[in-house]
Amino acid sequence: MARTASLSGFPEWLPQERLVELHVLDTLRRTFELHGFSSIETRAVETVGQLLRKGEIDKEVYGLSRLQDDDDAGKDDPSQLALHFDLTVPFARYVVENAGYLSFPFRRYQIQKVWRGERPQEGRSREFTQADIDVVADGVLPFRYDVELALVIAEALTALPLPAFKLRINNRKLAEGFYRGIGLTDTAGVLRSIDKLEKIGAGAVAGLLKSELGATDEQAAKALALASIRTEDVSFVARVRALGVTDELLEEGLDELEQVISAAVARAPGSVVADLSIARGLDYYTGTVYETVLVGHEALGSICSGGRYDALAAKGNRTFPGVGLSIGVTRLVSRILSHELATASRSVPTAVLVTLADEDGWMAAQDVAAQLRARGIATEVAAKADKFGKQIKYADRRGIPFVWFTEPDGSHQVKDIRSGEQVPADPASWMPPAADLAPTITIS
Amino acid sequence: MARTASLSGFPEWLPQERLVELHVLDTLRRTFELHGFSSIETRAVETVGQLLRKGEIDKEVYGLSRLQDDDDAGKDDPSQLALHFDLTVPFARYVVENAGYLSFPFRRYQIQKVWRGERPQEGRSREFTQADIDVVADGVLPFRYDVELALVIAEALTALPLPAFKLRINNRKLAEGFYRGIGLTDTAGVLRSIDKLEKIGAGAVAGLLKSELGATDEQAAKALALASIRTEDVSFVARVRALGVTDELLEEGLDELEQVISAAVARAPGSVVADLSIARGLDYYTGTVYETVLVGHEALGSICSGGRYDALAAKGNRTFPGVGLSIGVTRLVSRILSHELATASRSVPTAVLVTLADEDGWMAAQDVAAQLRARGIATEVAAKADKFGKQIKYADRRGIPFVWFTEPDGSHQVKDIRSGEQVPADPASWMPPAADLAPTITIS
Repeated sequence: MARTASLSGFPEWLPQERLVELHVLDTLRRTFELHGFSSIETRAVETVGQLLRKGEIDKEVYGLSRLQDDDDAGKDDPSQLALHFDLTVPFARYVVENAGYLSFPFRRYQIQKVWRGERPQEGRSREFTQADIDVVADGVLPFRYDVELALVIAEALTALPLPAFKLRINNRKLAEGFYRGIGLTDTAGVLRSIDKLEKIGAGAVAGLLKSELGATDEQAAKALALASIRTEDVSFVARVRALGVTDELLEEGLDELEQVISAAVARAPGSVVADLSIARGLDYYTGTVYETVLVGHEALGSICSGGRYDALAAKGNRTFPGVGLSIGVTRLVSRILSHELATASRSVPTAVLVTLADEDGWMAAQDVAAQLRARGIATEVAAKADKFGKQIKYADRRGIPFVWFTEPDGSHQVKDIRSGEQVPADPASWMPPAADLAPTITIS
Repeated sequence: MARTASLSGFPEWLPQERLVELHVLDTLRRTFELHGFSSIETRAVETVGQLLRKGEIDKEVYGLSRLQDDDDAGKDDPSQLALHFDLTVPFARYVVENAGYLSFPFRRYQIQKVWRGERPQEGRSREFTQADIDVVADGVLPFRYDVELALVIAEALTALPLPAFKLRINNRKLAEGFYRGIGLTDTAGVLRSIDKLEKIGAGAVAGLLKSELGATDEQAAKALALASIRTEDVSFVARVRALGVTDELLEEGLDELEQVISAAVARAPGSVVADLSIARGLDYYTGTVYETVLVGHEALGSICSGGRYDALAAKGNRTFPGVGLSIGVTRLVSRILSHELATASRSVPTAVLVTLADEDGWMAAQDVAAQLRARGIATEVAAKADKFGKQIKYADRRGIPFVWFTEPDGSHQVKDIRSGEQVPADPASWMPPAADLAPTITIS
């Protein structure tokens, strides 16, 4: 990783690095499909009107205009096109547009690039890949999906070449009910202040609660006491109750969070924590909220976040509630590469180079290669009948483990260029060791 | 396909359609990797200066500007960012930037979206996916790669759920040498006119050659005679020779094209044609040129094009010659879907729905699901213990072929909801028929 992106905020990978990214993407896809999620993609562009539909956003949006078009829509025209900054807004539009063609609850995964014109920094790019899963219903979405998504995402992250992670889970109903129960009615305002806890500390948050929301010392202390609760089991329930606040919504939130935590503790032990400080800032969640940190890499920020929303979208009098999570693939892959957490065993898919004894042997070499490929062995044929030493050097330089020789008598030999071992081989049946068939990803 | 894109030129697929696209993408990736091509991706944006580096282009480019940024770079600033309109220009930049980290000849495939602000029409979108393969050398690239790439692409297209195709191949050296040999020195001008043959006809092209390039009747007739040659074997050589033109470059081109055609006829019989009318317009090819049409869908235009260029890129006194082809994935998939050339067997990955007899059975149902998933069987668990009829209806509506029941005594049953057949099953060993394990793509 001596290289830096030639355009700040737009990372690109070398072939061997890309293999790590592909492994991450393939693993996520496989896990999501095993859990019954369907793949969709949405266009990269939305209208500005659609992107700003929910009001002010804190994302920096890239607008589009055709270079050869002299009368642009202009920045204030809601029909101007712009690049999407997440996959949730486009998914909401897709669901509304295609509601008549989808069967609900609709389970989808979506792995695509998104763009934000923010100042690039470690873990924050201008172009990056997100991998989202959501379940969305037409009408009512059973709460159990909140539990299920925590399990799916824990399974997906466990399958990646990563250090341990902690899935931090909270519930907005719990927090809002608690604030209401202690007499703070601007619950969104309290959430926004609590969201700053990690950045500015408890003292400053208490100050904000008092100065901006008119909280008393006691109210501020209680709100902070709630936010300080973190348990790796369901003991958070007793700790909240010990604060002596009663509220109907608080009870509903406690019950929901208890269900999520107890299932996750049973099925993904050690990877989940009830963290009552999680607020998820400006996002429009209405129940469960999720964040995820890599243990030992907490400063990287959340690598996977999401939550429950009562109305992902609406169409006439139909509403589509949903619950979903989004994995920051580029953030993860950047960290894996920069800290060499995992590496690919070679940079090319090729397992075998079929050499040429003379120029006329090229078509016969193609026949050998076709036989090997038919069994899934990635194979190249030398382009020229250079001296064997030069052909072997080509393979070595590219990291191709085996070279193939066809003898003048029509017999075949295959050589492992790492060990130098050379043995007779039949193109109709020879297989490399399983570990050499395709590049493998090893956790460092 | 009653649906139309909500934004003209930006197609989106339903989940079942997306499975056809995924099958196409997976098949291409697999074929390219079996031939030793490495995956890379480049960022979606380039600077305008980079995109226009080769001078005037005929593509409509989308420029980018941050909505919240009041002093834009502006359209005339070469540092302005814009979306790439193909994958060749970004690849050339990538090769130059990373030359020190790549081993040459570098074989890469690249499957990404590109954008062009053109008027949308059948087979032409504003956002579409291309799948490119190229081999690029540092210095000299043996001609044999031109032959190899024709074979790789024929194998890739054969593996797709498509009607028969014709790979039409020509050689710029052949054409330019011929024009020079008959005394037409503005060979680029002649190529541009010949490129219009299919659109405006031979008479109009002859007119252009005479009026714009000062050709005599005889020169125009000879140029058109060359362009009329199409053979499915190497007999084109004799037909060109019969025109009685001698030129060194012509001979080189004849020899090269003969090598490509004879290998392709042997290894991909019936799918290749030497077509001496292929010109590839404004593109900067210097030898072999390729185009591909689907038989019976010729009006769709070329679904796969490319060629050889002496200098894909240059860096100081190093040049990087290359040969490559680009498959128009979205054009192909749109045609497959609109003409129902292939369909997916179901719309969800899910093979099994594990039902719930009561709400307390959810964790046990997750255990069953985990056992099935461990063997690669995509499985969902019912979210609620509705009546079995309702749970089965959910599976049926989503096209899930099997439902799983756990009896009060702990034994298990699995039911094929298409046939109604229900049998005892062990979660540790049961497998669905291979055809039901995952959605399959069937050619209609």
